[in-house]
Amino acid sequence: MKIHGRHYRTIWPRADEAVEVIDQTKLPHEFTTVVLRTAVDCAQAIKSMVVRGAPLIGATAAYGVAVTMRDEPSSKALIRALDMLQATRPTAVNLRWALKRMHDVLHNRGHDERFALAWREAAAICDEDVEVCRQIGVHGLEIFRAAAAKKSGPLNILTHCNAGWLACVDWGTATAPIYMAHDAGIPLHVWVDETRPRNQGASLTAYELGAHGVPHTIIADNAGGHLMQTGRVDLCIVGVDRVTRNGDFANKIGTYLKALAAKDNGVPFYGAVPSPSIDWTLASGAEIPIEERSQDEVLKMTGRLPGGAVATVEIAAPGSPAANPGFDVTPARLVTAFITERGMCPASEVGLRGQFPAN
Amino acid sequence: MKIHGRHYRTIWPRADEAVEVIDQTKLPHEFTTVVLRTAVDCAQAIKSMVVRGAPLIGATAAYGVAVTMRDEPSSKALIRALDMLQATRPTAVNLRWALKRMHDVLHNRGHDERFALAWREAAAICDEDVEVCRQIGVHGLEIFRAAAAKKSGPLNILTHCNAGWLACVDWGTATAPIYMAHDAGIPLHVWVDETRPRNQGASLTAYELGAHGVPHTIIADNAGGHLMQTGRVDLCIVGVDRVTRNGDFANKIGTYLKALAAKDNGVPFYGAVPSPSIDWTLASGAEIPIEERSQDEVLKMTGRLPGGAVATVEIAAPGSPAANPGFDVTPARLVTAFITERGMCPASEVGLRGQFPAN
Repeated sequence: MKIHGRHYRTIWPRADEAVEVIDQTKLPHEFTTVVLRTAVDCAQAIKSMVVRGAPLIGATAAYGVAVTMRDEPSSKALIRALDMLQATRPTAVNLRWALKRMHDVLHNRGHDERFALAWREAAAICDEDVEVCRQIGVHGLEIFRAAAAKKSGPLNILTHCNAGWLACVDWGTATAPIYMAHDAGIPLHVWVDETRPRNQGASLTAYELGAHGVPHTIIADNAGGHLMQTGRVDLCIVGVDRVTRNGDFANKIGTYLKALAAKDNGVPFYGAVPSPSIDWTLASGAEIPIEERSQDEVLKMTGRLPGGAVATVEIAAPGSPAANPGFDVTPARLVTAFITERGMCPASEVGLRGQFPAN
Repeated sequence: MKIHGRHYRTIWPRADEAVEVIDQTKLPHEFTTVVLRTAVDCAQAIKSMVVRGAPLIGATAAYGVAVTMRDEPSSKALIRALDMLQATRPTAVNLRWALKRMHDVLHNRGHDERFALAWREAAAICDEDVEVCRQIGVHGLEIFRAAAAKKSGPLNILTHCNAGWLACVDWGTATAPIYMAHDAGIPLHVWVDETRPRNQGASLTAYELGAHGVPHTIIADNAGGHLMQTGRVDLCIVGVDRVTRNGDFANKIGTYLKALAAKDNGVPFYGAVPSPSIDWTLASGAEIPIEERSQDEVLKMTGRLPGGAVATVEIAAPGSPAANPGFDVTPARLVTAFITERGMCPASEVGLRGQFPAN
């Protein structure tokens, strides 16, 4: 999508055989990019959330393998890179999916061809992600169009966290239908959950919607239930970090609360599900490991001082500890439908297998 | 309760016939007090949330009337003060309750006795609030004791916003049973919702629990559902800003989401209800006016810089607007029981009238 009128992806290969990404820890205060030259660089970028979002994590990990093969195409180096990258974030399944794909392409090939193969495969993972998101947009657009036809005034959409193009390579998952509907002239307005503790909604989703010209309003995570109770939300759409066979899914902490409120108020609640986010090995959401992150993310907040400098302030009572689970599990029973790259389906094993019978 | 080993109330009369309050906008970074000399001072303190919490708002408004009578005991001045103070915050009913009580005591009395009567009545409102909170603590303690007896390890309690002694005159509503159970040696631990956008949980509830030595952990508002799903919350207790006849109640934005999660996970959810917070004139929560506050509360955050200075930073994407409803309504069907100064009762008209038959 566009920033300052120029088209970007979130990750792209460089002529010098390194990979470049947008530094998302600096947004929305500053737009900068970072060059990742080694697997350690890539792992560090994932851990520190320079890159974040399940699809982009997978793409970055794939390039982490590729740049390793550039320098040291041994099987030992390959295994070491795969292990290190796998250990960066436990919740998103795309990471494992992308690393398995890199492994399968490389492990029984000769050392001399590994870099070229890896570089091509990482690029393919990125290109496919763009196409998957675009297809989610195409299918979601029809849902949005139907919902908009049933009401006067703009379609009010609520989303949580950033399942936008900044979380992917382009388009985004939950945002793809939003961008397509907006571009198609359907009047819409997005309620953006700020998404504490890291504020990916207020900083990233608001940033990318604003850059594309989509009307939106930031709200505290606490506000969505009230907006649904008072009829100001027509539908919710969120991304997913990992979907299990039965249609449960992990997504950013707080998603479950919005799904409960949607159910309680009869508001349709959609998950935007690229197929690499489906973990066919897990039977239900209870099996998904939930990442516990640093308490500093809760106790501190980064922003712009009046002079424009970026600073981090402590916001809590001194000496009080914090807990910081990064994700929660939304049970399938709260989900109206999934929107995958193949269309809409029920959040259930039957629904998912109907779209992806090979799994 | 105690701060730095000294007992405080949140509001107290001074020898010079002004009233003094703790400046809660400065907490937890700085403990300072403010002298309120006029009704305008009191109204401003309520509006700017120097004082906040339904009971403390009522007490401050009562003193706002009293200091007016000190300077100008006319009926015109009385009405003007009542109107101005009533207009400060629309959601809490204690404000109206306290002002009506001041009006009823003063309106047909002579000018020369009005100040003494008003000063005494405001003090009585404060003393009664302390006693009401203490009684809520006594009744809540029994619930906590029974819950603690059913499990090993500390009782895990989740609370939202600050319904602590800082919201009242002393003890607090939701916190009174917590302090009493802790003092009685019942092992407990409190999950403190940070309560965006104003962070009264992270800044005030954590501060007062820490000052009293109660084990607690701050969490993002998004986290409570996940903690309940994973069995780490034994009960929820929250304050109320206004209860309607049928048992619906308004409280800080986000309370409804926690009530939904509690219901979905079989976690008992209690409202601590001092009787002045019951609005017998409203049939249901849909009739409660919900205050819309400044978008700056969402877009900015105040905290301590590494050097210790307090600063406000902008945390959202530049140019993105925010919406900021201050309260939401929790339907009675999600409430396990109310704890009032007279004991436990169902969240229903029958339940409330059973305890307060005169209304």
